Amino acid sequence: MSAKQIVLAARPKGMPDESAFRTEIVEVKAPEQGEVRIKGLYYSVDPYMRGRMSDAKSYAAPYEVGKPIVGGIVAEVLESKAEGIKAGDLVTGRVPWATEVTVPASELSKIDANLAPPSHYLGILGMPGLTAYFGLMDIGKPKAGETVLVSGAAGAVGVVVGQLAKQQGCRVVGIAGSDEKVDLLKHEFGFDEAINYKTTPDMTAAIAVACPDGVDVYYDNVGGEITDAAIMNLNFHARIALCGQIAQYNVTEVPMGPRLFPRLLTRKVLLKGFIVSDYLDRVQEGFAALAKGVKEGKLKYRETVVEGFDNLPKAFLSLFSGENKGKMIVKA
Amino acid sequence: MSAKQIVLAARPKGMPDESAFRTEIVEVKAPEQGEVRIKGLYYSVDPYMRGRMSDAKSYAAPYEVGKPIVGGIVAEVLESKAEGIKAGDLVTGRVPWATEVTVPASELSKIDANLAPPSHYLGILGMPGLTAYFGLMDIGKPKAGETVLVSGAAGAVGVVVGQLAKQQGCRVVGIAGSDEKVDLLKHEFGFDEAINYKTTPDMTAAIAVACPDGVDVYYDNVGGEITDAAIMNLNFHARIALCGQIAQYNVTEVPMGPRLFPRLLTRKVLLKGFIVSDYLDRVQEGFAALAKGVKEGKLKYRETVVEGFDNLPKAFLSLFSGENKGKMIVKA
Repeated sequence: MSAKQIVLAARPKGMPDESAFRTEIVEVKAPEQGEVRIKGLYYSVDPYMRGRMSDAKSYAAPYEVGKPIVGGIVAEVLESKAEGIKAGDLVTGRVPWATEVTVPASELSKIDANLAPPSHYLGILGMPGLTAYFGLMDIGKPKAGETVLVSGAAGAVGVVVGQLAKQQGCRVVGIAGSDEKVDLLKHEFGFDEAINYKTTPDMTAAIAVACPDGVDVYYDNVGGEITDAAIMNLNFHARIALCGQIAQYNVTEVPMGPRLFPRLLTRKVLLKGFIVSDYLDRVQEGFAALAKGVKEGKLKYRETVVEGFDNLPKAFLSLFSGENKGKMIVKA
Repeated sequence: MSAKQIVLAARPKGMPDESAFRTEIVEVKAPEQGEVRIKGLYYSVDPYMRGRMSDAKSYAAPYEVGKPIVGGIVAEVLESKAEGIKAGDLVTGRVPWATEVTVPASELSKIDANLAPPSHYLGILGMPGLTAYFGLMDIGKPKAGETVLVSGAAGAVGVVVGQLAKQQGCRVVGIAGSDEKVDLLKHEFGFDEAINYKTTPDMTAAIAVACPDGVDVYYDNVGGEITDAAIMNLNFHARIALCGQIAQYNVTEVPMGPRLFPRLLTRKVLLKGFIVSDYLDRVQEGFAALAKGVKEGKLKYRETVVEGFDNLPKAFLSLFSGENKGKMIVKA
């Protein structure tokens, strides 16, 4: 059988475009012992993948030029030579971007489609949901009555952070890039307040208004000037969960900004960069909490769905213009 | 009785000079119940005091204009109306800069001059020593075999950090501002390597050479470009103990620097601003560890002593030109 796969054509400099990707037709090998052949149903596109397109040392190994992009997937098993997994099973994992592919079963987990629609396992019940959970709960450690500020609030991680923080009894304020997103945060996801940074000239002042008691937890998905403004509003003993810095993923030179470490010092701030895989040993805990919220309807969820495997590069690139509301996925 | 005291004459803008201080002759009141009258023997000058001369919100309340500077002291009790404390006792505490002053005994602790010379209670057995201990042990959490990098390494805190880190079995590298200090760090305080930042054009490269396995713990006393260079050398899961930012204490505008949060994110770095009073409940533990090291001769100590109460402002100001090696104190 043959399938399409998408490879990294060249390492992009700065903002990538579709020339970074190339589609190839490849043979799909039959599974050997311990392997399964799967067909992609839903594909995840995530900002962190930009980092893997560079060759800089980071928490995830770089993609190789000429080799497939690897990303999150929900797939159906077509053929299995692995114990405990059979044709027809739905699975999730990180595998090459291909319409069909044969991989070791050990790289996949079976999913329960009765709990939630399968695509949710790429979002609230997958990497972004767990990222929100551990960053907020383990680094942010929000206490009832505190104020939690979230940047990139309308993204796959942000909407979960905000809802989890509300469950903890916090005042929750989101920052996003359109009035539509602001509306969504306040009226669909229950944020107490939200700020459109694109139409707000003085973010420091706007955050001060939205957070009259200051900011105790700042969950950062974006970095740059938004984060400067957040830092200026931090309370004593505030915590910063450093999850993403999308404002800088496509820069070719390190941008300059104000030196704010003295503020982190005098306010006795804790800052921690993290990645969800730091919490591998606690995945069960995080998944259980998220699944409970989804099952009981207490955690709302939203997807931006792009149709067609061929549109994977386009969907990925649109993350950087903020076109997604909630989790961006591609449906095969 | 009359005494001299030094008050804040005016809030300095930028680098202070002696015009920020004024000496006054005041009457020393007789102690009432619970109070003692003390005579200063040794006075502490510390970089953090610059922050208290401004009116910005910080971890310590601002000094008031026209009121005495308050700082660390070792004093002799002249007259006591307090239980458990008598004339002739040696005490330490934070009190107004005065040759003699009457204060509540509750603000003082008796010191044991058999353990170490009295002035040590302003340094290795006082606030700077405890700052070194808690920042390193509680935030840095150094493990044997790791590399600890210390900026402001020849200062009151830095020399203690380095020695404590050596005791933990770490490779220890210091950054200081003269060849003499570099020499002192390597040959008196047992640092494995030290770098004179004033004669090193590329600090990032120099740290990479001095720390061939990267930096696991960065104990920061200075901030600015030195800290940028340190961040570029951090290992995965590195810790930054944010103790001081002396490079920015006298700026009038926030300086610009490279935005390095993406590096903190991808290396999964922990950063924590702190102050020694965050550890009030663990002072016994810290003091015991430091006292043991001093008693056994395993923690070396050095003071830069300026003679004369009237020279307190000058001694304080000289901190910002790096004139001290080890702890700067003023002997009455």
